[in-house]
Amino acid sequence: MTTIAPDIDLVAIGETIVDFISTEPVEGLREATTFQRHLGGSPANIAVNISKLGGKAAVISKTGIGAFGQFLKAELRYHGVNTDYMIMDHRVHTSLIFVSQTSGTPDFEPSRNGDYKLTPAEVSEEAIARAKVVHASTWPLSRKPSRAAVEKTFKLAHEQGKVVSLDPNYSPVVWPNYQEAQKVIRDMYRYVTITKASLDDCHRFFGPGETPETYIEMLHELGPQIVIFTMGKDGSIISEDGHILGRLPARPIKVVDATGAGDSFWAGFLVAMLDGHALERCLLFAREIVEMKLAIVGPLPGAIDRSQIYARLPEPSTAFKAAY
Amino acid sequence: MTTIAPDIDLVAIGETIVDFISTEPVEGLREATTFQRHLGGSPANIAVNISKLGGKAAVISKTGIGAFGQFLKAELRYHGVNTDYMIMDHRVHTSLIFVSQTSGTPDFEPSRNGDYKLTPAEVSEEAIARAKVVHASTWPLSRKPSRAAVEKTFKLAHEQGKVVSLDPNYSPVVWPNYQEAQKVIRDMYRYVTITKASLDDCHRFFGPGETPETYIEMLHELGPQIVIFTMGKDGSIISEDGHILGRLPARPIKVVDATGAGDSFWAGFLVAMLDGHALERCLLFAREIVEMKLAIVGPLPGAIDRSQIYARLPEPSTAFKAAY
Repeated sequence: MTTIAPDIDLVAIGETIVDFISTEPVEGLREATTFQRHLGGSPANIAVNISKLGGKAAVISKTGIGAFGQFLKAELRYHGVNTDYMIMDHRVHTSLIFVSQTSGTPDFEPSRNGDYKLTPAEVSEEAIARAKVVHASTWPLSRKPSRAAVEKTFKLAHEQGKVVSLDPNYSPVVWPNYQEAQKVIRDMYRYVTITKASLDDCHRFFGPGETPETYIEMLHELGPQIVIFTMGKDGSIISEDGHILGRLPARPIKVVDATGAGDSFWAGFLVAMLDGHALERCLLFAREIVEMKLAIVGPLPGAIDRSQIYARLPEPSTAFKAAY
Repeated sequence: MTTIAPDIDLVAIGETIVDFISTEPVEGLREATTFQRHLGGSPANIAVNISKLGGKAAVISKTGIGAFGQFLKAELRYHGVNTDYMIMDHRVHTSLIFVSQTSGTPDFEPSRNGDYKLTPAEVSEEAIARAKVVHASTWPLSRKPSRAAVEKTFKLAHEQGKVVSLDPNYSPVVWPNYQEAQKVIRDMYRYVTITKASLDDCHRFFGPGETPETYIEMLHELGPQIVIFTMGKDGSIISEDGHILGRLPARPIKVVDATGAGDSFWAGFLVAMLDGHALERCLLFAREIVEMKLAIVGPLPGAIDRSQIYARLPEPSTAFKAAY
């Protein structure tokens, strides 16, 4: 077998879907009458963000062959994301999600079809061999056969010593069977080297009532060496091999639009890590990227010069709170 | 078994779905960015039109339980349609269809889920017993288990001597397997007493190249005693037991919006038939209703006084062209 030199920073497996976002602010989805179409799916958005930060990204996803599948592919390509490993299948519909624009918690309703019909055989082993980081969300884990497609991807990536990244964005709306979700996500964590979880993610996945430190321990116990724990305006924590390296406060900024903030943060962290920065500096970089995103309506701007951002990062010794 | 007196004019079985129509005129669906949500599905629209014409209608359909299922149920109820026999199932998504607003042929892409998951066991026998007319489109026939649900409905209605109505709106986008469609639709026609087919429907179903008279014969041979054949601006033909009763010219009117014209025509015809009018007068009434629809953007207005329309119908002897 010829060894392929990894030349893709991130290969994201999972949902590339159409986000239909209500054009007016509404109480709930039922009141929304008009929707605008956007490229969606957390792994796809992370891939786009990696590309905007100057990295190389690819997606492994399944869509239909109609107008919406074509739209998604064109959007990804427009943003420089490699779509060679996308499967467009005439037997499926492109998965969709409807989201209300609201001042409160967004109401959403997925209409899933193609995304979860990705089979293990459709996962390109070449894509995995070319990847530096392999990333997945919990969406493809929630159904079959995409669950097996992620397992194959993670297993291969793990065997090849890749960075394996999992977003534990568990939602009971997407995955109503809580017991099954627990089992499957825990099983998958065996292959994972890095994970980023928000306080909300941990409340939903482990149950409420624990301290951030306990949630971080619980995540490490599942497998990942590196845990990033985010708490919105209360900042974030970085932990390695069971040891908390530091707690980074969030800076006071005006939040204009929080949609996609997590995916911006995540892409920022991974890009800095691939650039060889220490984990504390990766967190500082991720904070810059998420602040950039929060300050504007819509996604991150294209063509971000990351060297400029590295140059302005504060010293970890002053930026981080005292270690524990 | 207690006999129930039929007290519902029309029970429509099939797709009650959300129509997402592009808010701007576009070349094709891929160019459409914004969509507005509407109650959709031909059987549901016929039920609404029956209600607007002062009749009683019910639907047998399956949707999800989320915002879109709730929206559809609320819309049907707002229009006075009985929703007691609708199935809202938490295991399915509400079926959707995206349609481009265009000056040419509308581009559409269905995203089907709940509508075709209607099972025979979920079809209420009470609803069938209460119906005067049972109506279906070809959508539910194109998949299982909804195909069996329609078959059960038609079989029972046929045994009980009901009017059984089928819209042969075959579309290869909805039903790619042409051979299967031929077999299933032909099988179902055995139970049918009345059908309305457009010239386009016949081109798609029987293949092009035949005269209207031949298509009408072909339809009669499949089962229905009454055949209505529509040709847009070239008018319509009514035929009974293999004999053409007359050809009714279309009147020159300004067509503002043709969406849903067929469903308005169909509802008009059935309402007049249930009122006991001769078939020629039913066709005259249907022409009035479709003209009313074509002259405005959007669906038929509510609360149409059909007695006023009956009063102004021309004499069939002058309105129809000479018999064949």
